[in-house]
Amino acid sequence: TVDGAALWNDILETARFGGTPKGGIRRLTLTEEDRLVRDWFIAACQAVGCTVTYDSMGNQFARRPGADDSLPPITMGSHLDTQPTGGKFDGIIGVLGGLAVLRALHATGHETRHPIELINWTNEEGARFAPAMLSSGVFAGVFTEQEALDKTDRAGIRFEDALVGIGYRGTEPCGQHPVAAYFELHIEQGPILEAENKTIGVVTGVQGMRWYEVTLTGRDSHAGSTPMTMRADALLAAARMIEAVNEVALAHGPDAVGTVGLIENRPNSRNVVPGEVFFTIDLRDPDDAVVERMEAAFRDRAAAIAAECGMQMVLERVWDSPAVHFDPACIDAVRRAAGSFGYPARDIVSGAGHDAAYMARITPTTMIFVPCAGGLSHNEAESAESADVAAGANVLLRAVLDADAR
Amino acid sequence: TVDGAALWNDILETARFGGTPKGGIRRLTLTEEDRLVRDWFIAACQAVGCTVTYDSMGNQFARRPGADDSLPPITMGSHLDTQPTGGKFDGIIGVLGGLAVLRALHATGHETRHPIELINWTNEEGARFAPAMLSSGVFAGVFTEQEALDKTDRAGIRFEDALVGIGYRGTEPCGQHPVAAYFELHIEQGPILEAENKTIGVVTGVQGMRWYEVTLTGRDSHAGSTPMTMRADALLAAARMIEAVNEVALAHGPDAVGTVGLIENRPNSRNVVPGEVFFTIDLRDPDDAVVERMEAAFRDRAAAIAAECGMQMVLERVWDSPAVHFDPACIDAVRRAAGSFGYPARDIVSGAGHDAAYMARITPTTMIFVPCAGGLSHNEAESAESADVAAGANVLLRAVLDADAR
Ligand SMILES: NC(=O)NCCC(=O)O
Ligand SMILES: NC(=O)NCCC(=O)O
Repeated sequence: TVDGAALWNDILETARFGGTPKGGIRRLTLTEEDRLVRDWFIAACQAVGCTVTYDSMGNQFARRPGADDSLPPITMGSHLDTQPTGGKFDGIIGVLGGLAVLRALHATGHETRHPIELINWTNEEGARFAPAMLSSGVFAGVFTEQEALDKTDRAGIRFEDALVGIGYRGTEPCGQHPVAAYFELHIEQGPILEAENKTIGVVTGVQGMRWYEVTLTGRDSHAGSTPMTMRADALLAAARMIEAVNEVALAHGPDAVGTVGLIENRPNSRNVVPGEVFFTIDLRDPDDAVVERMEAAFRDRAAAIAAECGMQMVLERVWDSPAVHFDPACIDAVRRAAGSFGYPARDIVSGAGHDAAYMARITPTTMIFVPCAGGLSHNEAESAESADVAAGANVLLRAVLDADAR
Repeated sequence: TVDGAALWNDILETARFGGTPKGGIRRLTLTEEDRLVRDWFIAACQAVGCTVTYDSMGNQFARRPGADDSLPPITMGSHLDTQPTGGKFDGIIGVLGGLAVLRALHATGHETRHPIELINWTNEEGARFAPAMLSSGVFAGVFTEQEALDKTDRAGIRFEDALVGIGYRGTEPCGQHPVAAYFELHIEQGPILEAENKTIGVVTGVQGMRWYEVTLTGRDSHAGSTPMTMRADALLAAARMIEAVNEVALAHGPDAVGTVGLIENRPNSRNVVPGEVFFTIDLRDPDDAVVERMEAAFRDRAAAIAAECGMQMVLERVWDSPAVHFDPACIDAVRRAAGSFGYPARDIVSGAGHDAAYMARITPTTMIFVPCAGGLSHNEAESAESADVAAGANVLLRAVLDADAR
């Protein structure tokens, strides 16, 4: 089993990098805070006998040699970047839990057949550069490296420039790294495990998700002297579309969700009727057909609203990540590992996207969930129990050894 | 009469300071662009024989001596600050039209009984520091100087620090400057004069206006794994309130207007259900009682929306500028001046706030409007005809001489 206290200590220690007064973390990808935690990651992995490299997308690989070092590695991983107001667990326990596994192997001198690798993926959150899971996406061949390098944040900074800026653009081409299997430990980020008193979620897949960008162009005008009937108010049109996203999600069954998370209003002045609004939409459901129907329903609603509000509208789908079904043998390994420890467990579908969703395209993959308080995530108050995190890392350890033995 | 060509030239020349690619101006108050146009103003006024001073709020006064220099000055004025995406005329023609009057007096050597002064008011727009008309408000005793100096912009910069930063905090205490009358030339910023083919609007008053700030606090959560029923989505609640502002304005008769011009969404990330939104509201009507009823109606709607969306709400009225009725003698002087030139004219109530609204509290005051294309203002495409602007300045000249003769 892993050293749960050391794992918890790592969580608290790395939470310094971008730590917020409210106890959360602001560690947007490819910032100075990200650089600091990457440097820490290298030192911590070297301390447990690993060699650390990084590829052309900045993905970090900590490698523990195997008895047959020519075999492709069994991999574990997740991400150390966070949301602007993120928590201490999302992504982080997948990396630090993997480190706990490496530490346990190192402490006992356990020899595996395959090399074991721990991966820290770049820009999983998609908070700074859209979409999410960008670098595991390049690794898995979903995006070309060039399109990823050319992504810009909302301030117009290119991904490549930010990556070079923190000194983490490696020479190994992203994706040319063999893997035998991939396991990712993560908090659930939803309410189910806690509500049912389960310690382990055996993750069978990831729901389908799509992202959209909408730009509405109306007409800037004076808030005092422009009659209501002469306005082309882009923020009013956006407000109606935000309501429409909500209604469309509610109308598509219990699992569908729809969110407007980001909005930019222009010129954003108290006495100017807004002339331009940019906003994003996130639609998800475990069933891709439902996501498709939600998109169609929203497109109809949006076209009607744009017409009634006198808007020019550009509505673009910028990301489509279809539902994923994980590898049955890997899922089974996790289920057996949980059982062997006697941890209460249940199968679960992930509502959040994860690097595992893209890794599943190229290698046998699954995930392990542990509960988080109130199902709250993407929130500075995100919290998880030390014992649950350690349990998740134990399951990760045993599933990795199981895969190594197969 | 004024030199219309010189006036037009001044408009184009000063449009350089903060000029935008789309032909508008971005010259937020107390920025470097504002400093440049203030420097220009001093030189231009000195060139027509004036002495230029500025007070503790940065208001600039260009003074042309009178035959009896102990008399309080007849004043003209407006502002040179603009919206983030403002036009070349709003405020500007009031200052440069006043300069054209001074130039005409200078060119003919005309001696007035009173001194004549031209005022460039600081922060009329209210775009950087709320509320609008802040420094004429201090001048007229509506706000204390200290509360004005302590105002902060959305980046947290204090008014006083910005004022000192551009070198325009004067030693003359704001408000200790005698005035005998105040005239302000401005574009209408609305559609009426153009629609009725009038050259001059004889402004009888300014409608009532109130500003509000609303902060909604819900709960940041994950856009993928948080069921619709477990959300406290501050942006959805804000969207409903934006719709409510629109409905309340429409329900209060043909003149009422309501606008949400500024919104800040937090954390503003694509895959985070927004936990906090800040937005502003602007409500106006020529009848203060209607504004009062709109406020009450909105407060009811907002409370209901906050409750249904699980929001904590802070709703604060941050500005109340009641309807203003200008001085009958000044109004009459403008009406006669327009008639003497044969300009088609009509009475009009201003939908926009102006420094004249506060000056009216302390001295006989009125305004002169000229048409602008399509009634469009607070827009980079704002435009006015050179001949109309010159006509407005001619009326200003004659009204000032009329007041001087009284
Ligand atoms: N796990 C996680 O929060 N990933 C971010 C991608 C998403 O939006 O689901
Ligand atoms: N004239 C003008 O646009 N003033 C700004 C204050 C207002 O919002 O009316």
